[in-house]
Amino acid sequence: MSYFHYIRVRFQHCDPAGIVFYPRYFEMVNQTIEDWFETIGMGFDRMHGMTASGVPTAQINTRFHAPSRLGDVLRFTLIPRKIGGASLTLTVTAHSGDEMRLSCEQVLVYVSLSDGRPRPWPQPLRNAITSQLQEQDPTDA
Amino acid sequence: MSYFHYIRVRFQHCDPAGIVFYPRYFEMVNQTIEDWFETIGMGFDRMHGMTASGVPTAQINTRFHAPSRLGDVLRFTLIPRKIGGASLTLTVTAHSGDEMRLSCEQVLVYVSLSDGRPRPWPQPLRNAITSQLQEQDPTDA
Amino acid sequence: MSYFHYIRVRFQHCDPAGIVFYPRYFEMVNQTIEDWFETIGMGFDRMHGMTASGVPTAQINTRFHAPSRLGDVLRFTLIPRKIGGASLTLTVTAHSGDEMRLSCEQVLVYVSLSDGRPRPWPQPLRNAITSQLQEQDPTDA
Amino acid sequence: MSYFHYIRVRFQHCDPAGIVFYPRYFEMVNQTIEDWFETIGMGFDRMHGMTASGVPTAQINTRFHAPSRLGDVLRFTLIPRKIGGASLTLTVTAHSGDEMRLSCEQVLVYVSLSDGRPRPWPQPLRNAITSQLQEQDPTDA
Repeated sequence: MSYFHYIRVRFQHCDPAGIVFYPRYFEMVNQTIEDWFETIGMGFDRMHGMTASGVPTAQINTRFHAPSRLGDVLRFTLIPRKIGGASLTLTVTAHSGDEMRLSCEQVLVYVSLSDGRPRPWPQPLRNAITSQLQEQDPTDA
Repeated sequence: MSYFHYIRVRFQHCDPAGIVFYPRYFEMVNQTIEDWFETIGMGFDRMHGMTASGVPTAQINTRFHAPSRLGDVLRFTLIPRKIGGASLTLTVTAHSGDEMRLSCEQVLVYVSLSDGRPRPWPQPLRNAITSQLQEQDPTDA
Repeated sequence: MSYFHYIRVRFQHCDPAGIVFYPRYFEMVNQTIEDWFETIGMGFDRMHGMTASGVPTAQINTRFHAPSRLGDVLRFTLIPRKIGGASLTLTVTAHSGDEMRLSCEQVLVYVSLSDGRPRPWPQPLRNAITSQLQEQDPTDA
Repeated sequence: MSYFHYIRVRFQHCDPAGIVFYPRYFEMVNQTIEDWFETIGMGFDRMHGMTASGVPTAQINTRFHAPSRLGDVLRFTLIPRKIGGASLTLTVTAHSGDEMRLSCEQVLVYVSLSDGRPRPWPQPLRNAITSQLQEQDPTDA
């Protein structure tokens, strides 16, 4: 199963060359993850507030396939790939129409905000994520 | 040869968990690259202005080894690793004292801003970069 | 006449105190202006592209009435107040429910990107804006 | 007495028109305030950490006198103007050489992070600020 939403490229995302400045893409990727967590019952406000947990990024490998410009509407797709004790590997891609603009593989870690140390995924969250896992096609880029 | 400078973690870089929000790290990485290009005679103002060129990122693989907090002073180190016809592979690391916080390998492409297509590195720039190349130690993390 | 849309407070907007970091509010204000210009037939992509014009901000006076937190949904309302030869005064407010969070009065200037100098508003744009002008209630905060 | 430091306009600050995107100016203004607080013995890390206090902005009025471009070195000057029970009015200006680029008047409020409510300035901080107060010249722009 995959989650997707659309984000429009705005003035604030673009650099003097008129294309998306790549650190802004990571804000969009983070927003995608944030919105996805909400769909599985753990919005970031609740996660950071009530449960005093967070999901910092441990690793992110990204390719920028083609530039994006002001006004482009990007389709961000998130697929959870693998869940560990406290980690989660997911892929996020962004397309404009059929053209892939960005693809990344990201590893998150579920941590307690009190000490920043990893904690096992709570069972309901683990169940929700596990039900959506989708193996990566080995022929994928 | 390597280039380094220091960037202090400021309020604007930090998230509600009190640590650097990772997209802000990429602004610091970009600033490191920008400052390094200036030391080899091609400041971004000149690059984008007079020569109508740019160095968009094609790929960046990043690991976040430990969180950084408000007030931390990070030592960013850039080492050029490999130069191609229009590409450049470099590594950037950030340390606070002896602790590594971030390491990334990034591939840039030298392009013309007129059409966004790759162009061969101008010879003086190629020479300056080549003189600093440093092979990656295969035992490096 | 007024224009409004909703922007949700996300992780990327919040500071270590857990509230919106005020420079991020200005990204939201800018997005509101950008989207409004599109509704009157002059999206920023077209403005910056085809017509080589821009609307930099000359002045902005802002009050932050109450803090906003992760997950809050803010209703941004834009009202054009006064149009000059090349200038436009508008007000933008943000509410969460009935609570006002931000109010600002902003002056934009229509300029040519070639020299950065003011230019008279093109007549169709002037007509579209004029038809929406709404005098500021002198009893407004 | 006034405090100043220099901030260079970098790629990350600039928009597709090649000039500083105004929300990025506010990050620079905030950095100026942050650094100034450190010089009077209350770095933001200590303020937010040990004392669980903050200085959110209640009001900021800003004029952008001329655009700034990639590579410009801006001299930011901060002058505290007036201290209240829990508030502080200060002015920040940015110049490139003799040319004023930005001027703003900002009102901060000293608050407890526990409830976000105003608190009286601690006496040592009040003393340090008071010793630097400088009345605004009524002939100032």
